[in-house]
Amino acid sequence: MSEAKKVPVGVSARHIHLTEAHVAALFGEGAALTEMKPLSQPGQFAANETVAVYGPKGAFAKVRILGPTRPATQLEVSRTDAFALGLNPPVRESGKIKGTPGIRIVGPAGEVTVEQGVIVAARHLHMHTSDAERFGVADKQLLRVRVGGERGLVFGNVVARVSDQFALDMHIDTDEGNAAGVATGEYGEIVD
Amino acid sequence: MSEAKKVPVGVSARHIHLTEAHVAALFGEGAALTEMKPLSQPGQFAANETVAVYGPKGAFAKVRILGPTRPATQLEVSRTDAFALGLNPPVRESGKIKGTPGIRIVGPAGEVTVEQGVIVAARHLHMHTSDAERFGVADKQLLRVRVGGERGLVFGNVVARVSDQFALDMHIDTDEGNAAGVATGEYGEIVD
Repeated sequence: MSEAKKVPVGVSARHIHLTEAHVAALFGEGAALTEMKPLSQPGQFAANETVAVYGPKGAFAKVRILGPTRPATQLEVSRTDAFALGLNPPVRESGKIKGTPGIRIVGPAGEVTVEQGVIVAARHLHMHTSDAERFGVADKQLLRVRVGGERGLVFGNVVARVSDQFALDMHIDTDEGNAAGVATGEYGEIVD
Repeated sequence: MSEAKKVPVGVSARHIHLTEAHVAALFGEGAALTEMKPLSQPGQFAANETVAVYGPKGAFAKVRILGPTRPATQLEVSRTDAFALGLNPPVRESGKIKGTPGIRIVGPAGEVTVEQGVIVAARHLHMHTSDAERFGVADKQLLRVRVGGERGLVFGNVVARVSDQFALDMHIDTDEGNAAGVATGEYGEIVD
């Protein structure tokens, strides 16, 4: 593997982002998310809090909330999870939830049903502005990233997300991690 | 997509192959598998019969049996399924079950616990001898196959399986199908 184009891989299990209003509705007025552990992106964290989500066909009892709160509530699932819930969400970049399926969310203090917000996250590669310069890559550029090993493959359409607030990390979901035989903490490389 | 190197894709859900003795143990003496529908490979079929399988952590109530019977019983699951069962099977070619995890199998007339036989199937490309000649590919050769679309990727280590008993069909599991956004009946192409 070329050291120069090496990128760490993070496999994201299903998770949810909540608005401040939904945190209050689900956990009670004045409640706040509390940090269980930091994520690879600066300021982002996995919360101690979880919620249950109910689709038309199935449910997940404990979905991890990722903080901090966001302008819109968004549930990110794998295609496998989506089948279990009985939903057919599109593959989308985070935040682009217009026209996506809704979901019922239940917390210890209440419940919320959102009309949209369920996505299968498009595979993407967070990078700091300095990484982008080093790689010669622009924000939103579609990249190819190779993962080695017995289930080795080359992911296409990996969206570059460049910001001076980001740390280098490629995010794929559990279906993609399983298909490639790759786990969080392992590495891929950008293919020219 | 180059028409010349186009290959149909088949996404395999979890399934089981049984020995004649295990069919008798699970469905009763004299019982035989009955055909629900033919598969892409000549002579192979999905049976009407299903079994339940129990791992240390979870179970699947209805696992489709593929016929005809085989010299060894083999359960093929995705990595996602394996987590649900609480097993850690290796990625293997069909039939290579030495040292793989066992499983408890329950049918309407009895049950069987096998000491080995659970695998995650290695992605492979069945082809007729005439296809292999046309592609310039040898049996057991490792190929790369590209799948297009928004989750497009290039699968590496696709094992060519050449026989005059085989029909052209690339077999991947549900994790791989979900990761690539590809369904049975769609197409990939062999990459040079």
